Amino acid sequence: MKLASLNDGTRDGALCVVSRDLKYATVAYDIAPTLQAALDDWDYLAPLLGELYEQANRAPSGSRWFEFDPCRFAAPLPRAYAWIGASAYPSHMERLRSARGLPLPEDFRKEPWLLNGRADAALAGHEDILLDDEALQLDLEAEIAVVTGDVPRGVKRERAGEHIRLFVLANDLTARALVSAELTKGNGLFHAKTALAFAPVAVTPDELGAAWDGRRVHLPLEVQLNDEPLGLPHAGTDMAFDFPALIAAAARMRDLRAGTIIGSGAVSNRDASVGACSLAEKRALQEEALDAPLLRIGDRIRIEMRAADGQSIFGAIAQTVVHPDRRDPQEGASSGASSDTAPADQAA
Amino acid sequence: MKLASLNDGTRDGALCVVSRDLKYATVAYDIAPTLQAALDDWDYLAPLLGELYEQANRAPSGSRWFEFDPCRFAAPLPRAYAWIGASAYPSHMERLRSARGLPLPEDFRKEPWLLNGRADAALAGHEDILLDDEALQLDLEAEIAVVTGDVPRGVKRERAGEHIRLFVLANDLTARALVSAELTKGNGLFHAKTALAFAPVAVTPDELGAAWDGRRVHLPLEVQLNDEPLGLPHAGTDMAFDFPALIAAAARMRDLRAGTIIGSGAVSNRDASVGACSLAEKRALQEEALDAPLLRIGDRIRIEMRAADGQSIFGAIAQTVVHPDRRDPQEGASSGASSDTAPADQAA
Repeated sequence: MKLASLNDGTRDGALCVVSRDLKYATVAYDIAPTLQAALDDWDYLAPLLGELYEQANRAPSGSRWFEFDPCRFAAPLPRAYAWIGASAYPSHMERLRSARGLPLPEDFRKEPWLLNGRADAALAGHEDILLDDEALQLDLEAEIAVVTGDVPRGVKRERAGEHIRLFVLANDLTARALVSAELTKGNGLFHAKTALAFAPVAVTPDELGAAWDGRRVHLPLEVQLNDEPLGLPHAGTDMAFDFPALIAAAARMRDLRAGTIIGSGAVSNRDASVGACSLAEKRALQEEALDAPLLRIGDRIRIEMRAADGQSIFGAIAQTVVHPDRRDPQEGASSGASSDTAPADQAA
Repeated sequence: MKLASLNDGTRDGALCVVSRDLKYATVAYDIAPTLQAALDDWDYLAPLLGELYEQANRAPSGSRWFEFDPCRFAAPLPRAYAWIGASAYPSHMERLRSARGLPLPEDFRKEPWLLNGRADAALAGHEDILLDDEALQLDLEAEIAVVTGDVPRGVKRERAGEHIRLFVLANDLTARALVSAELTKGNGLFHAKTALAFAPVAVTPDELGAAWDGRRVHLPLEVQLNDEPLGLPHAGTDMAFDFPALIAAAARMRDLRAGTIIGSGAVSNRDASVGACSLAEKRALQEEALDAPLLRIGDRIRIEMRAADGQSIFGAIAQTVVHPDRRDPQEGASSGASSDTAPADQAA
C-alpha cells in the first residue's frame, strides 16, 4: 500500500492512497482525514485503505481519482510526534568524525546511537531548502526511515519488526558547522539539525517485496547533486543495526507511540567507490578539508530508491537550495512568497 | 483562561475549560475537540474559549458543567509535537555535575543548554510512575514550561514572549544512573528521560497576574516527597535564561510550531536553604553520595504552584511510584490493570 498527504493548506494535509506506479491518487476522506489518524487506528483502517489501493492499481477512472503530481504533496507525516535519528551505518560516522578529529562515541558499534529530533514541520519532497548562510555547511543526509505503530517499552528485537507500519525516504538536513560544538556539549544535535524532508509517498513493508527481509532494505539508494551522481550505496549492506534493532533500542526505556519515525542515519557503505549520501562524507572520502561550504545556493538534490523493476518506490526527494531573502535587491520590495510558492527561476 | 484535557479514552483527550478556582469544568466540544486543535487556530478560537471561561467563573449551573476532578484529566497536551528541555537554573546543573565529577558544558551560562525530548505520551498529573528497577535512580524534576504558538525562526528575544500561549507545570522524570554515559556519548539524554508528567491545568499568561513580568514567573514552587517538603524554590529567582530567551534560543535555527513545549529545567535557587526540586540535587546539597537509589517504589510526589492568594494555579502533580508488575507473586495471575486503574494500596 502506498500512502501520501495532499498539501491542502492544513497542517497535516489530506490522506491519499497512491497507485503502485505513482500515476493515480485519491483522497481517502471516507476512511481517515490524515495519515496520523490512520496510524492511530491502523488495525481497523488499514484494510479499508487496502481496498482503495486495489482500486488504485486497476487504472481507475471516476471523479475521485486524479493524476499523482508529487509537487502537490506534503511529507507523508507533515508533523510527527517523534523523530528519532539513528546512525546505523558506521562508516558514515567513522568517516566524518575522523575527518573532524572527533572521537567516536563509546560503544557505538555495540548499541545504536540514537538522537531525539523534531519532525514537527517536515518539508515536502519537492520543497525548497532555505539557506541564508553557506558558512553553516548545510549538508544533506539521505536515509530510510520506518514509521511505527504503538511499540511497548522493552520490546524484543525479534518482535520489534511487527510494529513497522510504513517506510519513508528522508533527507535529514544538517548544519555541519554546528555539529562539533554540540557534540562536545553533550546535548545531541539541537541546532545542527535544521530541517527534515521526506519523499511524498510512504509504503507498507509488503511493497518492498523480497527487498525487505524483515531486517534491512536490500536496494540501492540513488543520490544526485546537480544531476551528477553523489552516491549509490546499497541500503542492505553495512547496516550494523537493522530496523528491528533500532526500534528495540528506541523502546528500551519507554513506549513509542503510533507515528514515531526512526531514521537509519545516512546510508553508507564501506566500499568507498559507491560514493556517499552526504557531501561531508564524500569530502572525507576524498580527503578534502571539511571547513568549506557544502550545499550552495542553487544546488539541486535528488534522492530516490527504485525497486528491482525500476519503479520509484517513494517518489523522489527533489529539492533546491534557495536563499530565504526573495526580495529583488534592486527593487527592495518584499514578495511575500512562501517557500511553497517560490518561483522556480529564483532557485535556478 | 484555564484549559485542560479530559481523559475520555482517546489519545488527545477532550478540550475543557476550567474555572479559575478549579471547581467547575466543561467540555469545549463546540469550540475545538482538543487542546492541540485550539492551539492550531488560537487567534480565532481563544476568544470563544474565553467566553466559556467567563461563564465558568460565575459559579455556573446547567448540564454542561461538572465538578472539576483532577483524577479524570490527562496532561493538558497528552501528546505534543515537540518538547524542548532547557536548564535555565544554573545551580541545578552545577550541583549535579559537581557531585558526579562531570564538567559543565562550555558556554552553559552564555547560551541556554537545550535538549530535544519527547512528550508524545505525557503522564497525567495524577498518574502512577512505573518503575521496575530502583537502581535506575529515577528522579523527579519539577519545572515550569511554556506552550508556544507558531514561532518564526530567528525571533528576537524582545518579541519571543508574544508567542507564549500557555504555562504548564511539569515533572521531567530522569533516570540519573543513565545520565553520565549519555552525556559522554554526546547524544543528549535519550534513554535517561523516561517520562514526563504534567499538572492537569494549563493557563494563559494573564492568569499569573503580576507574578508574570513577561520574563519569569515570580512564585514559589512547592515540592513534597511523602508529605515532607523537598523544596520551595522561587521560580523567579536565579533563572539565568528567562522564557523569552529560551524561546528565542530554541528558534535560532528553525521555526517552532504551535504546541511546542519548552521546559525551564528543574527550578533551583542558589540559596540552599530552600531545598531542591529533585532528589539528586537535594542529595548533592547534603553532600551525600549519588549512587544510591533516588525514588523508591511507593514514594509519593506532590508538585504545586500557588498564586499569592493561595489558589492552586495548575492543580497539583500528585504521583505515586509503582512497580509495573502488578501480579500478586503468591497468586501468579496477571491482573491486566493499566497504570490508570492501579489499586492505590499497591502504591502504599
